Amino acid sequence: MSSVAAEYKFEGWQALDASAAEGNMVWQEFQPKTWEEDDVDIKITHSGICGSDIHTLRSGWGATAYPCTVGHEIVGTAVRVGPKAKNGIKVGDRVGVGAQADSCLGRDGHCDDCAAEEENYCSGWVPTYNAKHFNGDATQGGYATYHRTKSHFVVKIPEGVDSAEAAPMLCGGVTVFHPLKSYNTGPGMRVGIVGVGGLGHYGVIFAKAMGAEVVGISRKVSKREEVLSLGADDYIATDDDKDWVAKNHRSLDLIISTVASSKVPINDYFKLLKKQASFVQVGIPEDGAFPIAGPSVVFGRNKFTGSLIGSPNDLRDMLELVAKKSLKGMVQQRSMKDANQAVQDLEAGKARYRYVLVNET
Amino acid sequence: MSSVAAEYKFEGWQALDASAAEGNMVWQEFQPKTWEEDDVDIKITHSGICGSDIHTLRSGWGATAYPCTVGHEIVGTAVRVGPKAKNGIKVGDRVGVGAQADSCLGRDGHCDDCAAEEENYCSGWVPTYNAKHFNGDATQGGYATYHRTKSHFVVKIPEGVDSAEAAPMLCGGVTVFHPLKSYNTGPGMRVGIVGVGGLGHYGVIFAKAMGAEVVGISRKVSKREEVLSLGADDYIATDDDKDWVAKNHRSLDLIISTVASSKVPINDYFKLLKKQASFVQVGIPEDGAFPIAGPSVVFGRNKFTGSLIGSPNDLRDMLELVAKKSLKGMVQQRSMKDANQAVQDLEAGKARYRYVLVNET
Repeated sequence: MSSVAAEYKFEGWQALDASAAEGNMVWQEFQPKTWEEDDVDIKITHSGICGSDIHTLRSGWGATAYPCTVGHEIVGTAVRVGPKAKNGIKVGDRVGVGAQADSCLGRDGHCDDCAAEEENYCSGWVPTYNAKHFNGDATQGGYATYHRTKSHFVVKIPEGVDSAEAAPMLCGGVTVFHPLKSYNTGPGMRVGIVGVGGLGHYGVIFAKAMGAEVVGISRKVSKREEVLSLGADDYIATDDDKDWVAKNHRSLDLIISTVASSKVPINDYFKLLKKQASFVQVGIPEDGAFPIAGPSVVFGRNKFTGSLIGSPNDLRDMLELVAKKSLKGMVQQRSMKDANQAVQDLEAGKARYRYVLVNET
Repeated sequence: MSSVAAEYKFEGWQALDASAAEGNMVWQEFQPKTWEEDDVDIKITHSGICGSDIHTLRSGWGATAYPCTVGHEIVGTAVRVGPKAKNGIKVGDRVGVGAQADSCLGRDGHCDDCAAEEENYCSGWVPTYNAKHFNGDATQGGYATYHRTKSHFVVKIPEGVDSAEAAPMLCGGVTVFHPLKSYNTGPGMRVGIVGVGGLGHYGVIFAKAMGAEVVGISRKVSKREEVLSLGADDYIATDDDKDWVAKNHRSLDLIISTVASSKVPINDYFKLLKKQASFVQVGIPEDGAFPIAGPSVVFGRNKFTGSLIGSPNDLRDMLELVAKKSLKGMVQQRSMKDANQAVQDLEAGKARYRYVLVNET
């Protein structure tokens, strides 16, 4: 099987320069990575659109290696599985790939992170697009017909979880699921989720499903009912609620912030934390550093920290919870053909909350 | 005993306005707090000079309630002990008081911090000067002849520890000892101490005594030999060592920063931390917030946090370690009469590293 030439073409939306973010991706064939015996080829059915895609399209996090196909919330069917593939994946399985294509996995000696199955923190981690595989080939993402990647980072999608639901959870969902899991979110905890959008709405849904009380935190009071309908127990509108800091002082055991900006009332958020509690930033802003005042961390031993996507185990744990509790995000399906428009609509803040590109079969 | 009027006078250096920081403290009698049955009166022999004293003298952390006697590293002899005093203190004992005069101790209902004997984080904590006792009386510090305070916060000085050595440890020392203890400093850990001065030199000495490898971090290479002589295993001069960030990348299990300024290469310091490791700030700068970049905390789950002095238990544990290992700081004794000059000398950066005011008997 592994020596048979594929009878399908890898085609997708490619960014040729930074103008791609303005709707100028071009549909064309691209070269997948050279086949290796622990690889999987996936016929893509669904590919979520993530804020990271836009950062990359416009070289917002540094120069992007064009041509580049973005997309790292990929769901489809395994159509070719190498003889050394991991995770028991078989041809015909419904599978998913998140933001990570590979990590060192101890290739070059012991790695604490890979040994702990926290591959998402491995210093040698390989993103799903705009990066190089260990064999030197470029990684290419999921706005495409097919995807070839390392089986270690391919997870099965459980029965009962729709592909369109699963796709945006593979980056957007797991990015908040991972810290919620790391901080042992459960009954007796009160968790704040800052920014209730593509990532944050999953934060509300997952934290609630894990048994915590959840407080959505955003700017406008107009969002209150929607956030409560997602399962939040309370909502704070930082632009509109009077005395929101004093009223919610030292009331939260954990805050996860999904806002990719440093222009937020960060030191006021710290006042909402109980002593020793952590503020976890999951998005990396393009607009500079967070001005953390000394008193924010000294008087209560509070912590400003961060979190980076999730490991394959986190993906599996998340999908198990999603299946068990029949969780659903707010997902809007778009045709793969309309990727350029969908990217612009996301950038314009129109998504409620997560777009998924769908390949017509 | 508790109803007997004291046959001694409370006199000390009092700040009458912000110019006190420039050497204008005035020697005069002051009113101690009203005597309560769990109080102790201490005949002061030694009083350390702490950077906090100067912040307070000049109203650097907010308006100081003048007249104010500063000083919160107090050692002397217990001369009056209330019948309800704690900690087994007896008249004649050599005792010490640090930066804290009281905490809620559950007076008004359960307090997590006091119940955990982490009184230093109690929201109701009462500083040793420039504050009010629970009975409404002003707290007055140790640049004085006598000190009256709550016995819960008075610790015995073990035999074998000089009073002049003990005094500056009661704030300067415990401020670094507490986080070293909290983070389980010991063999197998490599700890960085940023700023090797009044606080930082204790950080080097204590971390080494606890069994860790210690790296002193300061600006100038000229300080290298002195820091190594304190027991440091290595030294980083951030102004003078080429490639110090790359050479020491992800090499430290903990950093404690004793520099009371936000104008430091904070995001470079983060690059020295191993993954998940913490950067603990112990001083509160007057010069603004720390600009923490997203990548500093996201990629390695590193933590920016703080720490506030130490509890009475921390003081006892520290003094036990000091006695057991015969630890000595770098302390310079000054006459109590010269307090105004000594304050100015500290501010001018002349102390190597800690001044202690000594009362002539």
